[in-house]
Amino acid sequence: MTGDAMSGHDMTGNDTARLEQQLGFLLEIDKLKRIERMTRITGNSRRENTAEHSWHLAVFAAVLAEWSDEPVDLGHVLLLCLVHDIVEIDAGDTFAYDTAGNETKVAREQAAADRLFGLLPDDQGPLFRALWDEYEDATTPESRFANAVDRLQPVMLNHASKNEAPWKQHQVTLDQVVRRNAPIADGSRALWEAAKRRIDEVVAEGGIIG
Amino acid sequence: MTGDAMSGHDMTGNDTARLEQQLGFLLEIDKLKRIERMTRITGNSRRENTAEHSWHLAVFAAVLAEWSDEPVDLGHVLLLCLVHDIVEIDAGDTFAYDTAGNETKVAREQAAADRLFGLLPDDQGPLFRALWDEYEDATTPESRFANAVDRLQPVMLNHASKNEAPWKQHQVTLDQVVRRNAPIADGSRALWEAAKRRIDEVVAEGGIIG
Repeated sequence: MTGDAMSGHDMTGNDTARLEQQLGFLLEIDKLKRIERMTRITGNSRRENTAEHSWHLAVFAAVLAEWSDEPVDLGHVLLLCLVHDIVEIDAGDTFAYDTAGNETKVAREQAAADRLFGLLPDDQGPLFRALWDEYEDATTPESRFANAVDRLQPVMLNHASKNEAPWKQHQVTLDQVVRRNAPIADGSRALWEAAKRRIDEVVAEGGIIG
Repeated sequence: MTGDAMSGHDMTGNDTARLEQQLGFLLEIDKLKRIERMTRITGNSRRENTAEHSWHLAVFAAVLAEWSDEPVDLGHVLLLCLVHDIVEIDAGDTFAYDTAGNETKVAREQAAADRLFGLLPDDQGPLFRALWDEYEDATTPESRFANAVDRLQPVMLNHASKNEAPWKQHQVTLDQVVRRNAPIADGSRALWEAAKRRIDEVVAEGGIIG
């Protein structure tokens, strides 16, 4: 046995049940590591998965927070980044330029949010669900900035992937790329400038149909 | 071209250089997605990488913060979780039970921290370096709790991996596992209880040499 250092601690049965329920959720969301996105990691060895994307995004937010056009609570932005794609465990990743997939995306993701955040204790599930709703609605400064970095990050990776980028592979047009990414400017005009520099370079290299 | 919506914005050349330096750092740390750990993701299909581990850890912290034995600033804990393993891009992942590797780990990781956080602007690099130092020192409530979940998370995955877990594959003993994981109790006695329940189960199933 692992010893009795805990023998003096006063966990009740209810405490243990609550903690085990939380750990059940945390084990379930491990599945996000198996969800593949269209973007490729640098070095082009493979596609990115949604768990590592969520980490990358959160670090983007931490490093770039000063470029938000509105003051943001960084801790809250980080929570939005960490939680924003958990629904993909059930709903899958929907390619940003997949028109048919995006028509059914809302319904699929709502059902996923019901199930996944419903695994948490009754008082905690709604708090995490509210983070996801906030991210989706993009009506707070924090969610506008989280949405901005969530668009900038794949632009960075697609720019780095050159001809292997999904833009070229899926014959995405410049008009589509601009429509998808212009909302970066709702969170940060500076980050939209940086994204545009990269999009223009890819167009010049023939990686996007101009 | 992508249009001139930004033409009225007042980015100076220095602003753009600063932002591009930050984006250079963010692209460099994409390499963390290529660093493999000994733990296996649920479903046992492959080993976990350090980027997705860092995401998982941060969500652990967000869900389990109530179990910290000291009050913590959750936003700060999240920053520690996101940054704590970036040095592995240069230093590699050192298996917790690799005695020889752990003798050289500090020097390798210090050099990695110098290079990687040195990619950020001069005023920002030291802030991120300080987060990593704080995590390593584990002398604040936030870093004690981040260290606790950083130990609990692989216990959860190893428990889920059954006989595929690195404990069995590398013939790690119960004494080693307890020594490695007992510091969980420095951040949260409740989480150490939860870890012990799992360690005891693995011992009972023959997955750790008791």
